[in-house]
Amino acid sequence: MAVDRDRLRVDIKENAQFGAVESDSGCGRSVLTGSDADQRARKRFITRLEDAGLEPRVDPVGNIAGRWIPDGVSADTAPIALGSHLDSVPRGGIFDGPLGVYAALEAVRAIQESAETPSRPLEVVSFTEEEGSRFGVGTLGSLVAVGEISVEEALSMTNDDGDTFEECLERIGFAGSSEIDPATWDAWLEVHIEQDTELESAEIPIGVVDSISGITNCTAAVAGESNHAGATSMVDRRDALSAASEFVVDVERIAKEVTNDHPTAVATVGRQDVEPNVRNIVPGRVRMEMDVRSVNGDAIDTIVERSADRFERLEHERPVETDFERNRDMPPIELSDRCVDAIELTAERLDVESTTMHSGAVHDTGNVAAKTDAAMLFVPSRDGISHSPHEWTDWDDCAISARILAATALELT
Amino acid sequence: MAVDRDRLRVDIKENAQFGAVESDSGCGRSVLTGSDADQRARKRFITRLEDAGLEPRVDPVGNIAGRWIPDGVSADTAPIALGSHLDSVPRGGIFDGPLGVYAALEAVRAIQESAETPSRPLEVVSFTEEEGSRFGVGTLGSLVAVGEISVEEALSMTNDDGDTFEECLERIGFAGSSEIDPATWDAWLEVHIEQDTELESAEIPIGVVDSISGITNCTAAVAGESNHAGATSMVDRRDALSAASEFVVDVERIAKEVTNDHPTAVATVGRQDVEPNVRNIVPGRVRMEMDVRSVNGDAIDTIVERSADRFERLEHERPVETDFERNRDMPPIELSDRCVDAIELTAERLDVESTTMHSGAVHDTGNVAAKTDAAMLFVPSRDGISHSPHEWTDWDDCAISARILAATALELT
Repeated sequence: MAVDRDRLRVDIKENAQFGAVESDSGCGRSVLTGSDADQRARKRFITRLEDAGLEPRVDPVGNIAGRWIPDGVSADTAPIALGSHLDSVPRGGIFDGPLGVYAALEAVRAIQESAETPSRPLEVVSFTEEEGSRFGVGTLGSLVAVGEISVEEALSMTNDDGDTFEECLERIGFAGSSEIDPATWDAWLEVHIEQDTELESAEIPIGVVDSISGITNCTAAVAGESNHAGATSMVDRRDALSAASEFVVDVERIAKEVTNDHPTAVATVGRQDVEPNVRNIVPGRVRMEMDVRSVNGDAIDTIVERSADRFERLEHERPVETDFERNRDMPPIELSDRCVDAIELTAERLDVESTTMHSGAVHDTGNVAAKTDAAMLFVPSRDGISHSPHEWTDWDDCAISARILAATALELT
Repeated sequence: MAVDRDRLRVDIKENAQFGAVESDSGCGRSVLTGSDADQRARKRFITRLEDAGLEPRVDPVGNIAGRWIPDGVSADTAPIALGSHLDSVPRGGIFDGPLGVYAALEAVRAIQESAETPSRPLEVVSFTEEEGSRFGVGTLGSLVAVGEISVEEALSMTNDDGDTFEECLERIGFAGSSEIDPATWDAWLEVHIEQDTELESAEIPIGVVDSISGITNCTAAVAGESNHAGATSMVDRRDALSAASEFVVDVERIAKEVTNDHPTAVATVGRQDVEPNVRNIVPGRVRMEMDVRSVNGDAIDTIVERSADRFERLEHERPVETDFERNRDMPPIELSDRCVDAIELTAERLDVESTTMHSGAVHDTGNVAAKTDAAMLFVPSRDGISHSPHEWTDWDDCAISARILAATALELT
C-alpha cells in the first residue's frame, strides 16, 4: 500500500490558494469561517471527496464528512474516522488543519488503490471553526458534534461584524442537515503538525499523541495608584506594574519548579494591560491573563494555587490590592490505548521511528475522545513555528504521516 | 497688604468653567490649546488683566503678559514677572496652572491696593501649552519665549487632527506680535500645586522650590519569540515578558538604592507594550519607556547606567535580545538663591511656615531660570493628586501663596 506524496502535496498546495496572504515565505493563508476563502476551500474538499468516491454530507454547523463503504462491508458498520480542520487563524500557515484533512483523504485513496480491504467504512472529516478565530470558541465544530454545545447555541453566536454563525454558514451554502456524530464512529485519528520542536530536534517523523493537556485560565489584576512620575517619591508610590512584574517572574519560576515532577506543565502570562500606560505616570492598574497547562491536573492545580498565593502575598509586601480569578478549566484528556498502540505497532512494522508524546495545544481530537477511541499523529514543524506563514512541514514527512495513518486505520478495522 | 481670598477663589472657579468635565468631584476641566475652552479662558484672563489696569499683550505663540507700571517707575525698568499657565491635560484639575496665573494677578492687585509702592513694574504671565497635551512638547510656550525653540518651528507643529499650532492660535485669535522675553525680566516667580504629599503630610502651607529635577528618558526593548503557550515547553520558550518583568523590578530596586544618597531620585517604567499580548501566546516582544529624575545629575546617570547594565545582562541569563536607548536628557536646574532667599525671608516675616524642596515635575520656571533669577512656591495638593478632577488645594492655602508671592515680589524690587 503506497500513498501518493505528490497527490497529497497538490491537495495541500491547492487548498493553500484559498485566502492566500502576502508573505516572504510565500505560503500563508487566512481562512476564517464564513469567508469566501472558507467557501472555496470547502467546495474543493467536497469535490476531492467525490473524486475519491466518498459521498459528502454536511451537518448543521458546517462540519463535513465523506464516507467510503468498501465492497462487502455493511453500511451500518461503525466507521473509522480520520480528519482535522480547514480553517486557519488570521495569517496562519498552510499545514495546521489541512494536512490532517488531506492526509486522511490520501490514506483512504491509498487503501482504495491497495490490495487491502478494510472491514469497516472509512470516513474523512473536516470540522468547522477549529481555531475559534471568527466566533471566539476554539474547536466549535467538534464541540457541537459531540453535544458539548447545542446546535442552537452555536448558530446564534455572533462574530465581530455582528453576523451570526448561522448567517455565515447559510451565506457560503454550508448549513447542512446531515448528522455527523463521533459517538457512531469505531475510532478516530487526526494527523496534525506538532507546533513545537521535539520531533524536529530528535529527527523523528511521527509523534504518537497519548494525551492532551488540560488548560486553566486565570486573570490577575493589580490596583495601585496612578501618579506623577516626577513628583511622587519612590517611597510614596503604589506602582501596579512593579507588583505585576514580580508576579510574572514568580509564575515562570513556579512553573519551572513544577516541571521537575511534571515535564508537560507550562504557565504563561501572555497578556498584560497597563493603565494609563504613559511614560511619565506611575502605573495605577495592571490586568494580566494567565494560561496554565499540563497533562496532569494536579500539576495545574499546584501552579495555579502557588501563583495565587504568591500574588496575594504582594498585598502584604507592597501598597497594592490584588484580585486573582480562576476562570476556566478544561481537564487533561487521556487518549485511547487501543489507538495509540495501533499507531506504534504500525510505525514499527513500517520501520518508521516514532515517539510517544503529549499535545500542549487543544485539538478536535480532545472532544472526539469523549465519544470514541481516539488518538493523534504529530509530524515535525520546522522550528516549531505555527499560526504563521512561516509554518512548514517537509512533504516527505506529510507523506509518511498519511502512510502511517492509512496502515493504522487498516490495523484498527 | 492683604490679598482677597474670595476674589482669588472666584477667579479660579470662573476659569474652571471653561472646558469643565463631568466628574464626581464636580471640578475637572479639559483646556487644550486652541480649543474653544482655551479661547474663553484666555479672553477672561485678558479682561481680568485689564480690570486691574494691566495692559495685556500676546506673543506669536500665544503667551500672554500684562504689565503694571507703578507711578514713578520708569517703563523700561526690568519687571518682576509672576505667572504660570492656563491649559490643562485632558480631564485635568482646576488648580494646576490657573492657581499660579491668578495668584500672580491677585498679588499685583493686593500690592496696588496696599500702601506699598514697588520700584519695578510687575508682569503677570500665562504661558501657552505648558502641559504639551495638544502638540506633544511640554512647556512649549516658555521654550519659545526663552529661545530654546524658534517661533517658526513651534508654529509648524501639528496636533492629532493635523492642524498646525499656527492655525490653532489664529482660529482662537491669540497669534500675537508682541514680545514676551524672560531675559528682560529682573526675576520670575511661579506658584504651583505640589502634586505630591510632602507639604500636606507635614502640614506646611508653602514649599520653597530651590531646584527642579533633571529628566532622562530611556526605551528598553526585549525581543524573544512569540510561540504557542500550550505547545512550547518551559525550557524552549523565549518569553519577552518574563525578561521585561525582571527589568521593571530591577529598575525599582536600583532607584530605591540610589535614594539612600539622593532622596529626590525616582525611576519609573510607566509604559510597557507587549506583543502580541494574547493570553495563549508566549510574548515575543516587549517595549518599555522609562523616566528617571533627580536634582542630581550623577544620581540619574547611576540609575540609568545600572539599569542598562542589568538589562543587558538579561541576554546572558535568558534567550532574549535587548536594546536599551537613552533618548533625552534634561539636566537638573538650580533655581536662584536670590529668589529662594526672598521667599524664605518673606514667609518667616509673615509667620508662615515654609520648607525648602525640589520639584520632580517640569515647569515653565525651568526654562525661565536660564534667562533670569527664578524660583517657585509650592502649595499643598490634597492626597498629592494632580492631572485629575480630584486635584484640590484649600482656598486658604491658595490665598497664603498669593500673599507670600506679593510680599516676595515687593522684597525683590
